Parts: sequence; C-alpha cells; structure tokens
Amino acid sequence: MDYENFFGSELQSVRDEGRYRVFAEIERKAGNFPQATRYVDGETSNVTVWCSNDYLGMGQHPKVLQAMHTVIDECGAGAGGTRNISGTNHHHVLLETELADLHNKEDALLFTSGYVSNWAALGTLAARIPNCMVLSDALNHASMIEGIRYSQADRMIFEHNSPEDLDRKLATLDPDRPKLVAFESVYSMDGDIAPIAEILDVCEAHNAMSYIDEVHGVGLYGPRGGGVAEREGLMDRITVIEGTLGKAFGVMGGYIAASKNLCDYVRTFASGFIFTTALPPAVAAGACASIRHLKESSAERERQQDRVEKVRSALDRMGIPHLPNPSHIIPVMVGDAHKCKFISDWLMENHGIYVQPINYPTVPRGTERLRLTPSPVHSDGDIDRLLSALSEIWSHCELARRDIAA
Amino acid sequence: MDYENFFGSELQSVRDEGRYRVFAEIERKAGNFPQATRYVDGETSNVTVWCSNDYLGMGQHPKVLQAMHTVIDECGAGAGGTRNISGTNHHHVLLETELADLHNKEDALLFTSGYVSNWAALGTLAARIPNCMVLSDALNHASMIEGIRYSQADRMIFEHNSPEDLDRKLATLDPDRPKLVAFESVYSMDGDIAPIAEILDVCEAHNAMSYIDEVHGVGLYGPRGGGVAEREGLMDRITVIEGTLGKAFGVMGGYIAASKNLCDYVRTFASGFIFTTALPPAVAAGACASIRHLKESSAERERQQDRVEKVRSALDRMGIPHLPNPSHIIPVMVGDAHKCKFISDWLMENHGIYVQPINYPTVPRGTERLRLTPSPVHSDGDIDRLLSALSEIWSHCELARRDIAA
Repeated sequence: MDYENFFGSELQSVRDEGRYRVFAEIERKAGNFPQATRYVDGETSNVTVWCSNDYLGMGQHPKVLQAMHTVIDECGAGAGGTRNISGTNHHHVLLETELADLHNKEDALLFTSGYVSNWAALGTLAARIPNCMVLSDALNHASMIEGIRYSQADRMIFEHNSPEDLDRKLATLDPDRPKLVAFESVYSMDGDIAPIAEILDVCEAHNAMSYIDEVHGVGLYGPRGGGVAEREGLMDRITVIEGTLGKAFGVMGGYIAASKNLCDYVRTFASGFIFTTALPPAVAAGACASIRHLKESSAERERQQDRVEKVRSALDRMGIPHLPNPSHIIPVMVGDAHKCKFISDWLMENHGIYVQPINYPTVPRGTERLRLTPSPVHSDGDIDRLLSALSEIWSHCELARRDIAA
Repeated sequence: MDYENFFGSELQSVRDEGRYRVFAEIERKAGNFPQATRYVDGETSNVTVWCSNDYLGMGQHPKVLQAMHTVIDECGAGAGGTRNISGTNHHHVLLETELADLHNKEDALLFTSGYVSNWAALGTLAARIPNCMVLSDALNHASMIEGIRYSQADRMIFEHNSPEDLDRKLATLDPDRPKLVAFESVYSMDGDIAPIAEILDVCEAHNAMSYIDEVHGVGLYGPRGGGVAEREGLMDRITVIEGTLGKAFGVMGGYIAASKNLCDYVRTFASGFIFTTALPPAVAAGACASIRHLKESSAERERQQDRVEKVRSALDRMGIPHLPNPSHIIPVMVGDAHKCKFISDWLMENHGIYVQPINYPTVPRGTERLRLTPSPVHSDGDIDRLLSALSEIWSHCELARRDIAA
C-alpha cells in the first residue's frame, strides 16, 4: 500500500466533486466586528463576515475581554491538568454554578467543546444505562450521532421534529426499558425549531429521558438567554440541556446542565471528560462574564432579531430564495456545490463579503447554501452592501428568483 | 426505570470502592507557580501543587501571557466558528506552521485538545483506509483507544513497549494490507519511554504507518523541545507525530504533524475536526509563543531535569518506593485506593501539599499511586517540604520502605 498515493487520490476525488474545503484565513478585529482582515498569500484585505456563529458579537464585548485579561494575569494561561489532576480551577467551578443557574438545574458540567459534551454525555449515558434505547432526531448534529454510535446502544431514528413519529416508535418498546430521546432546539443548517413541548409530552408519557442540544439557542432566546426551552418555560421538564460557550457566548467550551446525580455520573464515567486537560481558566472566566451579561441584557438579542428581520425581508423583496424558519439563521439556497462556491468566491473577491459555502457533508447534496447569520454588530450599511451584492450575482448568474413578495 | 435512583446507586458503588473522585478546587497564581489558592466551602488556603502537567511552568511565562493579552485585544475572545465556517484565524495558521517546523514535517493540523486529536486522527485514518489493521500498544491512552474503537477497524494489541511482539504480530498479516502502528513516547502514569527506533525498524520492515503520541514529550525532550523522537533523531521516520499544547506548552489544544496530504486528508474527513468551534485565537497565539520560546531555550528543560533528579534521589535515600523510569514523571507507589487518598488528603490538610491520588480507571487496581511532576518552578524549599512530609506519613502509616540506597 502506498499511503501517500492513497491520501492524494482520495483528496482529488473530493476536489473533483467540488467539495474540497478551502479555509478562509481571517483575523477578526476586536471592537470592529464584523470587520476582519483576510490573508491570501501574504496579502491582506478587509472583509465583512456574514457567517460567524459569534451570533451576538460577545466575542468582542469589553466585559468578556476584561474577564479574560484579569484571569490570565491572576491564574496564567492553561489549567495545567485534567479536572481531576490539578486542573479544576476556581473559575471552572464558578462557571458551572452560573450554568446550573442559567438553566435552573441542580448542576452543570463543563467540557472542552460542545462537540465533546454531546459525544461524551450521550455516549456515556447510552452506553452505561443498562439496555438503554436511544431515540434520535433524523437531523441531529454529527457530535450527537457520534456519541450515540460510540455507546453501541440500540437506537431508533425518528422523523425530524415529529413528536408523532417519536410517539409511535416509543410505543413499540417495553415500558420498563430505559429510553433516551435526543434532539436539538434550533437546527443549525435549516434554522428550524423543534416542537419542544410536544416532544416532552411524548417523553413523559413513555418515561423517557429527554436530551436537548441548545447550542444554537443559548444566549439567543429566553429572557435570560437560557435558550428556546427557557423562552417556552420548558427547562424544568428536560432531563439534560446541552449547550456551548463558543457561539452566542463568544468564547469556547461546552456543557450539560441536569440533576446533581446525572452530572456527577457523567463526570465520573465519561472518558472524554476525564482524560483531557481542562479549559484555560481565562476561557472559563470570559464565558462566565458573557453569560452573566446576557442574563441581564436583552439589547443584543433584540437588535439581532431586528437585523435578521431586516435581511430576511430584503431577500423577500428581491426574490432571493431562503428557507423560511423562526430562528436567527438565514439559509440562502443555491442547490449546487460548484455554484455555491462560485458565488461565495465572487462575493469575497468583488465585495469583501465573506459567506462560506455550505456543502456536503454538512448539508445533503443538492441543498448547498449560503448560511447568513446577521448579528447586532451588522450595520444598516453592511446589510445594504450584502443585499445589493447578492442581487447583482443573482442577476449575473441568472439564478432562479422566487415570485417577488408583495 | 427510575433514572435518578440508578445514577445515585451507581455513584454509591464508586464511593464504596474508594474511587469516587473529589476534584481539588484551586486557583493557580501566575508568577507564583507552583503556589495556588485552594477553595473549600468558601474558605481558602495556600497549597503547593506537585501534580501539574504544566511541566515547565510555561503557563505563567511572560511571553505566553503577553501573546494572549495582545491577541485578545486584537482578535477578541473566541474564534467565532468552525475552521471551515469563519473560524480559521491567522493565529491558527501561524501555529500550524510553527508545529510543522517543530517536528520537521510538511504540515500540521490543530484540534481542540490532545484527546480530540488522537480520537479524530486515529479514528479517521483507521476507519477510512480500506481494510486497515491497527496495532496498538497495550498501555495506550484512553483517547487513542477510543479513536481506534471509533474506527471499527480490525486491531491487534501488542505487548507494551515490545518491538518483538509487534514484529510477530505484523508478520502474521498480508504484506499488502494497510497497517497503522499506534504508540506513545512517554507513558503518563509509569513514566517509561518507548523503544522508538526499534518500533520504527519493525514498522518499516512491514510497510506500516507509525503514529506516535508525544503529549508527555513535546517541549520537554530534544534540543528544540520536539519530543523524545527529536532527541533521538527519529522524527523523519515517523508517519504521524501527535502532541498537545496543554502540558509542557502550558496552554490548551492538540495537533498532529505529518505529510501535507495526510494532514489534508484528516482535515477533510475527521468529524471531530470539522464540526467543532476552533480554538480561541489567543489560545493559539499563547501556544505559539510557548513553542517558539522552548525551541530556543533549554534552561527550563535543564532545570526540570535537575529538579526531577533531586526528588528522585531523595526518595531513594528515604526508601520511599517509586517506579524507576527515564522520564520526568515520578510515580510514588501506594497500591491501595483508600490509602492513596488518605495520604493525599493528609498532605493537603497538614502540609498544604497537593498531590492528587491516582486510582482506577486511570491506573490498574492495586497500582494506585501519587504521581509527582517536579518542574523548574519548584524551589529547593518546596522539595525539602515535600520529602519531609512524605517521610513523616510513610512512618506514620507504617508504609513499606525499600532498602535504603547506599
């Protein structure tokens, strides 16, 4: 076997399919988001970022940066160990307390990322609860799928956002069998929102644990930024709420919030929690400052919703097709990998507008898209420039438009 | 099923076995390592940390902290996205270039942790190379085991640090079959070091890829801190070098260094790389500063080796049993979970000395230990206080001593 040859030819197939990923190298400008410097072959240019998951611009909030500066000076750079072996810093404990409070749960447990929190928590629960059956929404994120797969537990996939199908599937199972229902609140790529109350009704009727991924909800929904489940008054009915510190909270890390025993159980048995260096204390402190701010301030959420509405209605006026959904995510549909990349490149080269093309495997083939995430830091001018550029390329490429809305 | 009841009773079993983990909550003091503040029920006290994996104290190095401060001010808190979707910051690219140079490889690829780098890289290579057979050292770290398990590839476990057994096992395989040999340089809990040259001889004889985990080697060994493989002039013969930014480099994150095609292959196909928020730019910049410093300065390595030798010879003089090994890790053997925890608690309460007890599942039952990691920041006074306290508790508990060395 010629390994190098193998890697080279596999990569060539990806290129041939038009789905080879070229990472845009940027340097976001704190205090000046969504502006960033783009690097290409040693040359730099200015771009406006339209595809960040720093949804509220908290990654440049003075309180967050100040908390990080302070804790770097006080505690240094890294945690210096796993949580068990000298790596539990006071700031991890403060953050876990803050997260438990955010979700009105007894306890919370930090992980190094949202990916790891799903993988480790779902993986541990499903693997160790004897004879556990997992019911997983058909569009769950890769990290949830990998966690469930890791567990080697039996699983059933229920139709996306369908409490009816979930109910049908649960009804086929032994009532005494342990069951874990895993789903998301906001689905990242389509931006649709789960019927959480109806799913919880079904879970409760069948004595199933419920596990919700709120990574695209926390910070953004609910009076204190507790997520869609907080907005709908449902947090207390959910067994496990999983979230991230790397999107609306603007920093990095993931967590679960749940009962004291459940968190302690995952803490005790999850390989991906135990055998890894803890988050830097300054990262924990920055996230903590962000959460505290968004618990008390709704200004960022309100301004974001206003920006989203402004972009969405302008797209409607221009007939540029986008998936309708009740969230802050605006998927502008292209439906072809090459075309999607072409438009993205054109926006970058001609207008300094950065929107990453979203291709397979992140979305199914044929549903390639530009995923716009308007945020409070996008000005009216930013929006006007984006819309005018999109309109130009839509005409230029003779891309389909919807009937113009009245 | 009463889920809460189940979690509670499982945790009780762990408590009954004496292996329930209580995390020490500390606040390391930048500029003053190994000193830290310990928190218990709202009260604080001062402790000296003897079990950190911030092996060289780089977590408080002014160059590292300055780099983090600067990049927080320039780029903000988090990366704002996955590497593919707006999350590739200039500082990630600089760090990957630095890492490739450190290991004299064509390229390097960053992950959010060492755990994730092993899990994602081994998992992806073993899963996607058709019919790949993995040969895994019997004492490999949990993250490697999970990666291999994830891949669902066939695997054989070879005897720990035995090129002979590896050779025997490889000889049973079809010469044309793809093979991946995974091992570590320094094993964390015993501190022993692999016979890397002999293992590579065997790999080359059988056309197997070699994958070395250098997380306890990078920064610490070799003239530029490239690890044990650098010290022994073997980096060029290794297919994949995996390392961490969270131990000797003092920050957080993991990586692989390898050929351009191999890194690109893992970049393109690894779920744990693709679907996760990138490291904060300031974390990347801090790690980069640390690597650059340790490439040029051997003072930290030399002083560490001096400290290790001083502790080891004092333990010998007192007859306190510790595993002999050629690394910087000193495992003081206790051999009983309850006793190990008792000694650790006693050291903390009576002498403000923090050494975490290492129990199952981190080490096999019956080999419970205190794992000491002397570092350049431990003073002669720190060492004297540690040794005098250990001698006292050894006498107090009538623990076995070795024959006193001459």
